[in-house]
Amino acid sequence: MRLINRLKAVLLLTAICTLAGSSAAWTQTLQEVMQERGLTEKDVLAAAKTYIPTGGRDEYLCFSSGGQSGQVIVYGIPSMRILKYIGVFTPEPWQGYGFDDESKAVLAGGRIDGKDITFGDSHHPAISETDGDYDGKFLFINDKANPRVAVIDLKDFETKQIVPNPFFQSDHGGCFATPNTEYVMEGSQYPAPLDGEFAPLEEFNEKYRGGLTYWKFDREAGRLDPEQTFTFELPPYSQDLSDAGKGPSYGWGFTNSFCSERYVGGIERGRPPFEAGCSSKDTDFMHVTNWVKAAELVAAGKVGKVKGHYLISIAQAIAEDLLFLIPEPKSPHGCDVSPDGASIIVAGKLDSHAWVYSFVKIKAAIDGRNFEGYDAYGIPIISLEAALDKSVSVGLGPLHTQFDSEDGVCYTSIYVDSQITKWNYKTGKVLDTLPIHYNVGHLMTMEGDTKNPDGKFLVALNKLAIDRFDPVGPLHPQNHQLIDISHPTMTLLYDMPLPLGEPHYAVSIKMDKLDPLVRYKSGWDSRQEKRSEFRARAGRERTDRQPGKVEVFGTLIRSHITPEIIEVTEGDKVLIHLTNLERAEDEVHGFSISGQNIQLSVEPGKTASASFVADKAGVYPYYCTEFCSALHLEMEGYLLVQPKGYQAVTAEMQQGVAYSKEDYLTQVATNEATQEVIDQVVAFITSHNYQEFPTVLALVEDATDQLGFAAEAKQKAETAATGNDWQNAMLWANQWWQYQVKTADLGLRAKTFLEESGAKKIK
Amino acid sequence: MRLINRLKAVLLLTAICTLAGSSAAWTQTLQEVMQERGLTEKDVLAAAKTYIPTGGRDEYLCFSSGGQSGQVIVYGIPSMRILKYIGVFTPEPWQGYGFDDESKAVLAGGRIDGKDITFGDSHHPAISETDGDYDGKFLFINDKANPRVAVIDLKDFETKQIVPNPFFQSDHGGCFATPNTEYVMEGSQYPAPLDGEFAPLEEFNEKYRGGLTYWKFDREAGRLDPEQTFTFELPPYSQDLSDAGKGPSYGWGFTNSFCSERYVGGIERGRPPFEAGCSSKDTDFMHVTNWVKAAELVAAGKVGKVKGHYLISIAQAIAEDLLFLIPEPKSPHGCDVSPDGASIIVAGKLDSHAWVYSFVKIKAAIDGRNFEGYDAYGIPIISLEAALDKSVSVGLGPLHTQFDSEDGVCYTSIYVDSQITKWNYKTGKVLDTLPIHYNVGHLMTMEGDTKNPDGKFLVALNKLAIDRFDPVGPLHPQNHQLIDISHPTMTLLYDMPLPLGEPHYAVSIKMDKLDPLVRYKSGWDSRQEKRSEFRARAGRERTDRQPGKVEVFGTLIRSHITPEIIEVTEGDKVLIHLTNLERAEDEVHGFSISGQNIQLSVEPGKTASASFVADKAGVYPYYCTEFCSALHLEMEGYLLVQPKGYQAVTAEMQQGVAYSKEDYLTQVATNEATQEVIDQVVAFITSHNYQEFPTVLALVEDATDQLGFAAEAKQKAETAATGNDWQNAMLWANQWWQYQVKTADLGLRAKTFLEESGAKKIK
Repeated sequence: MRLINRLKAVLLLTAICTLAGSSAAWTQTLQEVMQERGLTEKDVLAAAKTYIPTGGRDEYLCFSSGGQSGQVIVYGIPSMRILKYIGVFTPEPWQGYGFDDESKAVLAGGRIDGKDITFGDSHHPAISETDGDYDGKFLFINDKANPRVAVIDLKDFETKQIVPNPFFQSDHGGCFATPNTEYVMEGSQYPAPLDGEFAPLEEFNEKYRGGLTYWKFDREAGRLDPEQTFTFELPPYSQDLSDAGKGPSYGWGFTNSFCSERYVGGIERGRPPFEAGCSSKDTDFMHVTNWVKAAELVAAGKVGKVKGHYLISIAQAIAEDLLFLIPEPKSPHGCDVSPDGASIIVAGKLDSHAWVYSFVKIKAAIDGRNFEGYDAYGIPIISLEAALDKSVSVGLGPLHTQFDSEDGVCYTSIYVDSQITKWNYKTGKVLDTLPIHYNVGHLMTMEGDTKNPDGKFLVALNKLAIDRFDPVGPLHPQNHQLIDISHPTMTLLYDMPLPLGEPHYAVSIKMDKLDPLVRYKSGWDSRQEKRSEFRARAGRERTDRQPGKVEVFGTLIRSHITPEIIEVTEGDKVLIHLTNLERAEDEVHGFSISGQNIQLSVEPGKTASASFVADKAGVYPYYCTEFCSALHLEMEGYLLVQPKGYQAVTAEMQQGVAYSKEDYLTQVATNEATQEVIDQVVAFITSHNYQEFPTVLALVEDATDQLGFAAEAKQKAETAATGNDWQNAMLWANQWWQYQVKTADLGLRAKTFLEESGAKKIK
Repeated sequence: MRLINRLKAVLLLTAICTLAGSSAAWTQTLQEVMQERGLTEKDVLAAAKTYIPTGGRDEYLCFSSGGQSGQVIVYGIPSMRILKYIGVFTPEPWQGYGFDDESKAVLAGGRIDGKDITFGDSHHPAISETDGDYDGKFLFINDKANPRVAVIDLKDFETKQIVPNPFFQSDHGGCFATPNTEYVMEGSQYPAPLDGEFAPLEEFNEKYRGGLTYWKFDREAGRLDPEQTFTFELPPYSQDLSDAGKGPSYGWGFTNSFCSERYVGGIERGRPPFEAGCSSKDTDFMHVTNWVKAAELVAAGKVGKVKGHYLISIAQAIAEDLLFLIPEPKSPHGCDVSPDGASIIVAGKLDSHAWVYSFVKIKAAIDGRNFEGYDAYGIPIISLEAALDKSVSVGLGPLHTQFDSEDGVCYTSIYVDSQITKWNYKTGKVLDTLPIHYNVGHLMTMEGDTKNPDGKFLVALNKLAIDRFDPVGPLHPQNHQLIDISHPTMTLLYDMPLPLGEPHYAVSIKMDKLDPLVRYKSGWDSRQEKRSEFRARAGRERTDRQPGKVEVFGTLIRSHITPEIIEVTEGDKVLIHLTNLERAEDEVHGFSISGQNIQLSVEPGKTASASFVADKAGVYPYYCTEFCSALHLEMEGYLLVQPKGYQAVTAEMQQGVAYSKEDYLTQVATNEATQEVIDQVVAFITSHNYQEFPTVLALVEDATDQLGFAAEAKQKAETAATGNDWQNAMLWANQWWQYQVKTADLGLRAKTFLEESGAKKIK
């Protein structure tokens, strides 16, 4: 038959097409392309600085908040290609996040007042640090809308924990890590009663409060530990962003604020709106907190608990010298400790200067009890004169400052003037300015908030894109502009649209500090990070039945789901646990059942679970939702929900097609030819130093599995043939071939990898 | 005071920084960059062909399915920058999709058996067509997992409708539009009883069925019309992809299938798996349907209804000559009608040939009743010989074919060999091949499935990325590879990671065919596309109270929310309707309330609604979730949920800061200086032909609004000052200034736009 012959030919790896003239490649010159596309030399230079050829790697990975999408966005720098949206506060079905039982438990940890919250307003990501440098192990991010903090493990880029703040009704200034990730800082934003109860706005000054939580991080467990966490009660100023001290300022935290006027709006009552009353004073307050001493008090049992959580009252903070205030330019947005830990830079959005505070001066004022007064809550105020090193005119609406690899050099985002200002906070000299488009919020340099910034690139996180991109309706993407800062003059390189969510803050880490997994240990619960009690192994799949409950322990492998038929009764609770048996990189399987709102992503090694009530009798196909193999569409099955009291039919399964002995023999001939191909590939692999390549070892492991299954299918085919059961003989022979095809595919992938990686012939 | 002085200086638009040497730009040569980054000349050429300088436009917009993310991905070609994820089947909070009442109603339309389905497995987008060409008006996309079809309006890129299929339990082959979008085709995938009831698999041949739905599209309404929609009952083969005929084949539809063996697996019962039995035969069936004649029968009242929907039984389809079968290569994935409508190309994933069918031959066989037999359901089968024009060897595992602008030239994705094959379906000659990385599924050329393909670019939608990108954990992005097809030899240009979801199919349209809105008419319900009954105008905001219910009709404008305080009683149902008063492009406001799972995206002009039960007494801040202005953080308010029986306090609102006459006078001086700036900007704008620029007109409209509000605030300030009420005088003076700042900001944005757009001086 001609189809079989074609397949044989192809599997024997002969060239299929003879191409006339394909070697005479058509060429076009750069000048022609520039002319055709209207590019300048500067454009081509920018293109060359950002382009990554196929298979190349970006130098940095950026973790950007996803704003109201509730996710974290991961993109490469300098290519600005988005590599992943990590599901954090919002369910995301591609990742099975919020659809499998394991991740539902993570999201359930973030419930507020017992209610499911299905989004977040993620603001400020922070990478875990060791000795003031990014260590690439964990990422923390807050939810401003529903004050919560999430922990993402950077070994698999999955969210492992969400914890609601026990005291706040909103946060904005989180997350910021202390230099060894001892704590993660989360500041409140809009004041509210810390006990979560109602109090009228007329009692704002007495009953409303801000706060600053230091979440204790248990590095070994990879989780925040609410038991060891403490919160500072703060006045009802709107606390904003924070940063942790390092070097000389180690042990201290710095938190700015706006609306220290404690103004309450009410435009509908004839009162001037919040924006008027919250920006009337010329200065707000930077809060200075001593977290090391606070932690000692906690450890010594000297801090009381409210609602089961440590709360340091304002009175205690004053009494123990844990809390001080310093005037800062009004409505600031950014509070940034210099790499050497000696300076803190704050800029007010309604000002045009960056203010550089000296920690030595602040410490001297504290030690000398040199206060200009006390706020309405009795907190000592250090005078601006006593704390300020200098103020530098940087442009109107300065927000956020990050640092260069060159000592003293830093960059400030200028919101109103829509520019980046490069300046030196040690000399006070402005070095360069670059217009951006449009209204930049935060900015980011490479590892720019660590003690060893890398310089090289800067990203301007613009708040409006307006007309930068092709129009896509009234809701526009955001625009992150990549800027080359490796030379004295800044150069704009690239405009990157953000297609989902409005990022607020971002952090970038050198790629070589990360070493993510490509597969899990077999049968792994990735959210609890242990072997799943629901795992199954090949051939050990089973279905447990109890009254009202059916529990399936199944597996996924190219290209079938075991079991292929699940029978339950209307009203049954159904639990389906699936383990991906593959080891090869990127061999993910998905799983979805018609109409049951089930969608799993099961990466190699993972065990994931779906549970639901089969509440309506009917026929519900299920299938693998990842295009995992040539026979992906055939990776299917049926959930049969039988009506209550249904009596199973005793009939045989019907045959759509009848097969003959000839069909069987033809299939066997194909299989034998296929086996020759496999043998050739195996010979190639084993004649090379393949054991030195972990990627190939994983492929060989999968191929060996498939070949083992092929042998089993072959035996079944031959047994059926012996009994003249040509129907089953043919079907099993075909399945034997299916396993062979997967083996061959894996083998070819391994062979190609070895060839491309320059493997050595060893025999 | 120095701050005020600085602000004055800045508002008077004087240069802030004097830069030493900033004009001497640092330069780097292309050669240096190439050497530093290890780029070849080919790389630089590819970079130059894909790079878009800031503010430039992509030539094509691609709409890609988002797979299991349930969304549609929009990206630009050739830059491959993602511009938007459109929320379709999955709630997405950035867009407020599934969070505002208006879009919740759209999602509720997609309920299955009364159940909310919070994701989809979106597969095949289709752009609406007029006379066989994309018209850029609508996009359709299916959900394979829970068989549904969605309609997206391309004037605002929002999902307007989701309709569940009345008969199917899964679909795969949707959506495909007929040449004038008379109908949208949706084919089922895994057979199941069409009545939605349970039937045992042992009765697969009798009771399980496939189907093909032709959804009637009402272009005027912009909605699918279930009343005029009809479905073909089809045999229990797994129907796959479709395409509508055009030109000579207009009026016909073509639908391929796999598993025409009608095999039922059951590996857990000792049966060979589906993959074995579904790929045993050498051929499957292409279904040929006559939709024009079917529509006539429907119109004539000759088609019966099942469950309220038109269903054409197999028997009726046979009797009326509406349905024919033709053998096709086994397990095909792609059924593509040529631009001239004369040929249909089908390729089987387990084959190595593309098969070119001739519509003339098919028609002749039908007219001559030249059938080789009938399938088990009595459907006439046209023989391969009678229908086939030619078969061309294109590589192992061919899937999908799209067309070039050059007559006869087409491209086929080759899954197993991981390559693109360029060939001529008229001459049968293979012209070029290009290896891709890795396992390509569908491919797409520019407008490549219309009657006038553009050629130029091809995108390979690869199923595995493996090692193409920086590692981000076990779950990898997908990889879309951009290929230059504007020359005889194909050239790989770009690797694009897909960060969320696994796209299956994509369509691209020339950008100049789209003309999306940047704002809505004021007070617009975008999902129902009419003035919202809940809209409010500036100064007309109100709160209605009924027992157990509080309803707010509010507004959003830079930088306050009206109302700023919402008081309700525990247990109240709360409805909040907000209208964005802005007209300026990209001036979106968001809205979120602590802990209530509320997140709105309110684009200029839109009215959006949130509803919830305030079930726990407490204080819940709300705020604008878009960084809309310098005082964005101050765009806040409080939802006060009072305990039942609470007696309101009669106290005055407390003052955090007391203001003096001097404060007031200082503020007034600032405001007067600010007004001078505004007057200068206004003079610039009105001295130019600004009325010819719609963008500027919108900005001027907003600025005029803000200036009007400023005048009101000024009056209030002066009234308070007259009464020696310096507190309110100062606050209103500050609010007057806030309005001025927004006016100035809008004015400057307009001035910059005019300057950049080459506006002419007219006086």
